[in-house]
Amino acid sequence: MATTTPKLKTAVMQYLDEDGIQGSLDLHTQAKKEFIGVFNDKILKPRNLDYKLQFTSPTGTSVVESAIKLARKVTQRKRVVAFTNGYHGMTGTALGLTGNKDNRQAVLDNYIDRLPYDGYFPKLNSLDLFRQLLEDRSSGFELPAAVILETIQGEGGINVASQEWLKQVRALTKEKGILLIIDDVQAGCGRAGDFFSFEDAGINPDLVCLSKSLSGFGYPLSLLLMSRQLDCWSPGEDNGTFRGNSLAMVTATSAINTFWSDDRLTEKMKADETFISQTLVRFQTEFPELIKEVKGRGMMYGIEFYNPSVAKALTQVCFDKRLIVERCGNEDQVVKLFPPLNIAREDLLKGLNLMRQGIQEVAIKQSDRESAVHIGLVE
Amino acid sequence: MATTTPKLKTAVMQYLDEDGIQGSLDLHTQAKKEFIGVFNDKILKPRNLDYKLQFTSPTGTSVVESAIKLARKVTQRKRVVAFTNGYHGMTGTALGLTGNKDNRQAVLDNYIDRLPYDGYFPKLNSLDLFRQLLEDRSSGFELPAAVILETIQGEGGINVASQEWLKQVRALTKEKGILLIIDDVQAGCGRAGDFFSFEDAGINPDLVCLSKSLSGFGYPLSLLLMSRQLDCWSPGEDNGTFRGNSLAMVTATSAINTFWSDDRLTEKMKADETFISQTLVRFQTEFPELIKEVKGRGMMYGIEFYNPSVAKALTQVCFDKRLIVERCGNEDQVVKLFPPLNIAREDLLKGLNLMRQGIQEVAIKQSDRESAVHIGLVE
Amino acid sequence: MATTTPKLKTAVMQYLDEDGIQGSLDLHTQAKKEFIGVFNDKILKPRNLDYKLQFTSPTGTSVVESAIKLARKVTQRKRVVAFTNGYHGMTGTALGLTGNKDNRQAVLDNYIDRLPYDGYFPKLNSLDLFRQLLEDRSSGFELPAAVILETIQGEGGINVASQEWLKQVRALTKEKGILLIIDDVQAGCGRAGDFFSFEDAGINPDLVCLSKSLSGFGYPLSLLLMSRQLDCWSPGEDNGTFRGNSLAMVTATSAINTFWSDDRLTEKMKADETFISQTLVRFQTEFPELIKEVKGRGMMYGIEFYNPSVAKALTQVCFDKRLIVERCGNEDQVVKLFPPLNIAREDLLKGLNLMRQGIQEVAIKQSDRESAVHIGLVE
Amino acid sequence: MATTTPKLKTAVMQYLDEDGIQGSLDLHTQAKKEFIGVFNDKILKPRNLDYKLQFTSPTGTSVVESAIKLARKVTQRKRVVAFTNGYHGMTGTALGLTGNKDNRQAVLDNYIDRLPYDGYFPKLNSLDLFRQLLEDRSSGFELPAAVILETIQGEGGINVASQEWLKQVRALTKEKGILLIIDDVQAGCGRAGDFFSFEDAGINPDLVCLSKSLSGFGYPLSLLLMSRQLDCWSPGEDNGTFRGNSLAMVTATSAINTFWSDDRLTEKMKADETFISQTLVRFQTEFPELIKEVKGRGMMYGIEFYNPSVAKALTQVCFDKRLIVERCGNEDQVVKLFPPLNIAREDLLKGLNLMRQGIQEVAIKQSDRESAVHIGLVE
Repeated sequence: MATTTPKLKTAVMQYLDEDGIQGSLDLHTQAKKEFIGVFNDKILKPRNLDYKLQFTSPTGTSVVESAIKLARKVTQRKRVVAFTNGYHGMTGTALGLTGNKDNRQAVLDNYIDRLPYDGYFPKLNSLDLFRQLLEDRSSGFELPAAVILETIQGEGGINVASQEWLKQVRALTKEKGILLIIDDVQAGCGRAGDFFSFEDAGINPDLVCLSKSLSGFGYPLSLLLMSRQLDCWSPGEDNGTFRGNSLAMVTATSAINTFWSDDRLTEKMKADETFISQTLVRFQTEFPELIKEVKGRGMMYGIEFYNPSVAKALTQVCFDKRLIVERCGNEDQVVKLFPPLNIAREDLLKGLNLMRQGIQEVAIKQSDRESAVHIGLVE
Repeated sequence: MATTTPKLKTAVMQYLDEDGIQGSLDLHTQAKKEFIGVFNDKILKPRNLDYKLQFTSPTGTSVVESAIKLARKVTQRKRVVAFTNGYHGMTGTALGLTGNKDNRQAVLDNYIDRLPYDGYFPKLNSLDLFRQLLEDRSSGFELPAAVILETIQGEGGINVASQEWLKQVRALTKEKGILLIIDDVQAGCGRAGDFFSFEDAGINPDLVCLSKSLSGFGYPLSLLLMSRQLDCWSPGEDNGTFRGNSLAMVTATSAINTFWSDDRLTEKMKADETFISQTLVRFQTEFPELIKEVKGRGMMYGIEFYNPSVAKALTQVCFDKRLIVERCGNEDQVVKLFPPLNIAREDLLKGLNLMRQGIQEVAIKQSDRESAVHIGLVE
Repeated sequence: MATTTPKLKTAVMQYLDEDGIQGSLDLHTQAKKEFIGVFNDKILKPRNLDYKLQFTSPTGTSVVESAIKLARKVTQRKRVVAFTNGYHGMTGTALGLTGNKDNRQAVLDNYIDRLPYDGYFPKLNSLDLFRQLLEDRSSGFELPAAVILETIQGEGGINVASQEWLKQVRALTKEKGILLIIDDVQAGCGRAGDFFSFEDAGINPDLVCLSKSLSGFGYPLSLLLMSRQLDCWSPGEDNGTFRGNSLAMVTATSAINTFWSDDRLTEKMKADETFISQTLVRFQTEFPELIKEVKGRGMMYGIEFYNPSVAKALTQVCFDKRLIVERCGNEDQVVKLFPPLNIAREDLLKGLNLMRQGIQEVAIKQSDRESAVHIGLVE
Repeated sequence: MATTTPKLKTAVMQYLDEDGIQGSLDLHTQAKKEFIGVFNDKILKPRNLDYKLQFTSPTGTSVVESAIKLARKVTQRKRVVAFTNGYHGMTGTALGLTGNKDNRQAVLDNYIDRLPYDGYFPKLNSLDLFRQLLEDRSSGFELPAAVILETIQGEGGINVASQEWLKQVRALTKEKGILLIIDDVQAGCGRAGDFFSFEDAGINPDLVCLSKSLSGFGYPLSLLLMSRQLDCWSPGEDNGTFRGNSLAMVTATSAINTFWSDDRLTEKMKADETFISQTLVRFQTEFPELIKEVKGRGMMYGIEFYNPSVAKALTQVCFDKRLIVERCGNEDQVVKLFPPLNIAREDLLKGLNLMRQGIQEVAIKQSDRESAVHIGLVE
């Protein structure tokens, strides 16, 4: 599998060499035709999914905006339900959907209602509350156009929704005529172990937002999947200059051909996940005073520390070891493990070893510091 | 006590006879001075309360609007928390706070977050959830300017908040720097048994909205009580033509002098409440198939029927018997008992007897109807 | 005419003496029946107007809120057009319609577009601009539910719209299917010379808001007149505790009977207006350095001063002379003359004399001050 | 100049060949360093401009959103002024700024005030009106955070603002403490004849939005230029996955080196513009019954037809001739001429000839049709 990346690069080089069209807006191109073909054949059909494809502006936030606009247009309702700790992007409406306070300064789309995510509040199934609010004529809660959620909240702290809860969301939204939008920008395209993060819950969202790894090569590309009957766009109603980013389609096609034509990648990721989760649980056992919880699914894991400053220190120490890890969670207390999906086992092992060393170093500093505090050297 | 109403009428007649000023805007008048005097001496001081008084436009909705405007100005925050099934009025912002769907068509003030009221959702203490949302930087929930609530939700179905819950609301809002507004438009001025509905919980709201029975004679009058340090109005900033409705102040003064100078009224209401609640519980025992719950406090009780159509039929039957009762609750399934605070026991008895007859008649019709359905005569 | 006020007082005393119902909510009462009768017979029919009457909550701001809510419900559109320097009240939506900055701190209903009022901007007919904005698909201006305006802007500075402009507003709104709401809270009920301020322009608004002087005795009362086909309220959709303020209906009935059964009041006001306007123009001739403009119509005049501090000083001086006058305009630079409609000529003369003395005193102070500034005594 | 495009392609190929980093988020890369260097040296410094650079999400709408968010954060004000027929993008806030009705269905950011663009309404200088609205305390118009505009409205119909008007905008916004944002997404990067479209007006905007042609090769890239003192972002406050799109930076660097190191391109464009405008004026002389106006600046011209259907027919006919032209304007009545900036004269000539043939064919069809209508064959 170590030779796979060159395939994408080769595809790019060849497309350039043949002077393929770079930006095509909404015009049909060979690159687009091929991508649509493989996406349908190798991604949608094998999963028994049937969606129309819209190439939105090539950012995660734009595909979310398009999904919400469409949902509001189709239903002629304004309100949208989002969840605690959700992250959906940085532009007008997407920002309103995003929970993080640091980003919310300029939120002016207030037609958003927020519900607790799965497991957010002890013993509360927020979907039962949601149903009661919807069915009570005086709850003050209006029938929303859509519910939008991530099946695994990435920026929110690697919070994994259960299959059962996702099934309940799907059933309730269907019953009430509310559109279900899965924001699979971060967890989709294989990150959660399957191509779509909602596959193992067996649900069928009305709209799916894809971006980030879709091109397979870091190029801007976004895709909105919609149930066929939802497409009520007028021509040019939801446009954007870079929605025909051909090079990204070329690499996306190559990525699907390379990685999603058979089960090898998913099998490999399953094995990797087992290895990662076992390793992280060992870390927790080794550093119980630092690590609060190990959480995640697929190739998307997080180590939640009791103390955000420990998480911060760890990312610094790792960076010095040339290992890039990021933080997430409401207090930036969770260190993310997002290895490449096709990472070789030895690289994964190396990375995890570096991280273990990092935790150990931070633990020692922390322990020194606590001793110092104890004997009054520092505050 | 049967001779008390004439006192208010006498006060009105005398004021008119002396050609007292009718509408005084914000100018000082004798009528206003006297009202402020007795309100301070006989209402606030004995309860150890210290508030500034603002005569807002003389409607319930206007006093709520003034409270919210002031809270937003003082805190420089926009969002306000209201509760499920809350009712706060019909104008712009007040309507946004109101939960009832039938009235919410034109709501355009969307800076409102809604939480479940005490007992709304089984086993959920919404204040614990509120705290978590406030303390979580990524909950998507912003620090509000104020929390507004009725201690007993009148239009919402005579839902009584517990003392414990009210104390928790007060403690949490104080801790977080959120203003607590008690909308005592319906439950205040004696309706809940004490002059203020929040007295028995022993809490000290930042702002209190009074209206409805304040004049004691059906005249439009509203009063916003505010903690002294909150008064940051500029001159004329929150004005209104009828805020100096003198005649209503005259009767309000007389009402306070007549009813709130000693404990006689509260003692009488205590006895009445016992009588009312025991009687209603008897009704429930007699008609268990119709009556779901008896709820209320003070002179503010409700009979919740399983079937809204039974409640509707009952108000009709009572009206024919010349007994006016209204419905409330999210499905209009609750029949309200709001006797005059100074009702004579024989009138109360008479009214309750009429109501019992009414229930019986409705029960018979219902039973006939069910038999008819059973044998296929009607659907 | 000096004996007329006692008629209203007598009506009140008699109603009280007969123990008439004080607050009736929406129930039919004798007082309401009589008011509706005389309002139809003596106000609407002679003017060839046909409206349904809604007794809204008895404040100016509430009748405006009801008008907007109804307009939004009927048209299923959200945006409303209001004008520069307009004043429409202090609650949520009405506040959004109001131009005055000092009151606008808490405006959260942003579905309002503002156009320049008649004569606001030199050489601009804002209605031609309005038409272009409406007819241009890319103007960014959406078809509004309603246009709301005062024919004479009271708080805005006694700005009088021309008949021609009002006719154009009516024609354009009719053509485009936009509802026209005349806010006659201040200029209506005779203040502008006729019962309705829009009579002399000969227009037929879709909705008319009345309040302030409607009761004729300073009592809170409001009335929304609506074209019959607009009434799409559900029962109880737009309610309010004090909408059945009987005493105010009693005096309103008496006021109409007393003042609007014949032409005597309008004839008298015509004569008074001539007298007032000639006198004020004389003031301007006498104090050209202070007075910028005399404006108004009917019994609703304003003296605009170049310097707001002169206007302020004048109201103080007048108050000391026991003459109450108020200021208006965007800088509070306009002193209002709002005598009682039935004022006796000698009282009017006395008031105007006091005002002239007041202006003279202020002129002298001003002149002293300017000299002092000139020689460096004060800044 | 015919050999220039290969330079960009060569740069891409080389970067790929050297396995340069594709997506770098906010991390520093060689590609970013080089781009910043040439942008400062060859674009900003020669024009005496000093800006901080923010790589926003790589779409036009995202750079606009970032500019507005920053303006709102810096000023702590919410309202933004946009102009009639403006186009600023498709996401939440940008959509609110956009005038086009077809796209505005889901607008929920209502903190936007719209003014007539330069020349929009006959004889109205909307900046004088703007000043009056700002200086009038009761205009209902609040001090905005920012004014955003295109110096040439692209989608709005190739409306060219005069230098004088742009200078007035800059002077007024500076005087009032309002930030001026130039949306140079379409008119910038050389399209209007200079690198920045505002150069010939000699103004200095506070914020400049660049995107579209910035990469020179059709790759998604956006850049927000901001006056140094405006940068008040917290780390990660305005992030986005694709803001480090290296390949686009590589081509952008090459494009600047190739085209903006000397005056050759601008000289060439000046000559082209003369040629284009003279040719289009000839078209208008030849088809006066079809062509209403020729407008534009630099390499950004439009032919406005009296009849939108003629414009539509022309784009079809041209497409059949393998000439792609688009339409714009509020009725899609303007055909856009946006040739590549480095187009060879023979290609330009060829394109204009095809267009002339196209107009002629449409004119004949139109004439046939009109004859047919005349003799009753079609409606």
